[in-house]
Amino acid sequence: MYGAFEGIVGELAKVVGAPFTAFPSAMMKYGGAGVSGWGTLCGCLNGAAAAINLLYEPAKANPIINELFGWYGVTALPDYKPKAPKFANIPTSVANSQLCHVSVTNWCDTSKFKATSPERADRCAWLTASTVKYTVDLLNKQSAGSFAATFKSPAAVTGCLSCHGKGGVSETVHANNATTCTSCHAEVLTGKHPIPLK
Amino acid sequence: MYGAFEGIVGELAKVVGAPFTAFPSAMMKYGGAGVSGWGTLCGCLNGAAAAINLLYEPAKANPIINELFGWYGVTALPDYKPKAPKFANIPTSVANSQLCHVSVTNWCDTSKFKATSPERADRCAWLTASTVKYTVDLLNKQSAGSFAATFKSPAAVTGCLSCHGKGGVSETVHANNATTCTSCHAEVLTGKHPIPLK
Repeated sequence: MYGAFEGIVGELAKVVGAPFTAFPSAMMKYGGAGVSGWGTLCGCLNGAAAAINLLYEPAKANPIINELFGWYGVTALPDYKPKAPKFANIPTSVANSQLCHVSVTNWCDTSKFKATSPERADRCAWLTASTVKYTVDLLNKQSAGSFAATFKSPAAVTGCLSCHGKGGVSETVHANNATTCTSCHAEVLTGKHPIPLK
Repeated sequence: MYGAFEGIVGELAKVVGAPFTAFPSAMMKYGGAGVSGWGTLCGCLNGAAAAINLLYEPAKANPIINELFGWYGVTALPDYKPKAPKFANIPTSVANSQLCHVSVTNWCDTSKFKATSPERADRCAWLTASTVKYTVDLLNKQSAGSFAATFKSPAAVTGCLSCHGKGGVSETVHANNATTCTSCHAEVLTGKHPIPLK
């Protein structure tokens, strides 16, 4: 979280100066490992979203955040490689989620590296750089007036939300956006949904 | 997120003044509904954690965050009632998670209210107040030198982590802390774990 926030706002502090120079960016250290090791929201998304909303009001920030979160969920990452990398290669994986735990575990399953390996730490560093680069591209487009929101939740998600989202017969889900529901709700895939699915 | 952060830092701005008066708290609006409707980390936890880390370095902040996240996962909430409530009563529920979507859905399942109902909106407002009150109690204890960390992940979680956490035979989980694993990994409860559990 700190890395992604500082990668955006620290650069603004260098190039633009005040008021960004006054921001206590180190406060963003709380978001590491999905907030203090709880594995919730991926820290680089938390930090990038904070930076986006520091720059734009929610009406403009949320579509940028949605674009970023959607991209993160479906893209083989990291797609950034440092100029002087500690490891020659870091395998990519698709997170299929915006959560730290799911993102890391999918990477471990794909790469066969352990969760506390130095390769995993570098993967998260490279991923943070990927996220900053993608976010800054979106912010530059917004600034140039050329940002166009393209994110839509996939049909498998909107299918679930047609019953469980706003106005549905079993409206118990407050979230509007997701990459997938079945990464946690595997029962839907194995035919164990309480009522037959259409 | 904005509510929880402003409930803590806004009060510091009133009582202590600078530097808290200069903080652009409205940036925390990004965390609503688990960040822009993505249902990830509950906004009031994200905002409270941000405030905690604004006040203390991670070595002191993280134990406070852990205490808060642990309490949130297992406590019947909201346990705060406004002086002039819109609704006479808001049912309580146990979130069993730190995620917005899980927290809200468990509340909807318990209360029978819909996810976009005005009662649900008030539940989240009351819950934010509960979270702020609990956080400020922890911060006051830290400030008075009487804070004692009590949070431990429950045995069901440390059992999973004995194989999947640091040093385990299938070390694929980076998270150290959780209320439960089985809210998503129901296969463990239904005997579908890939290898027999001890």
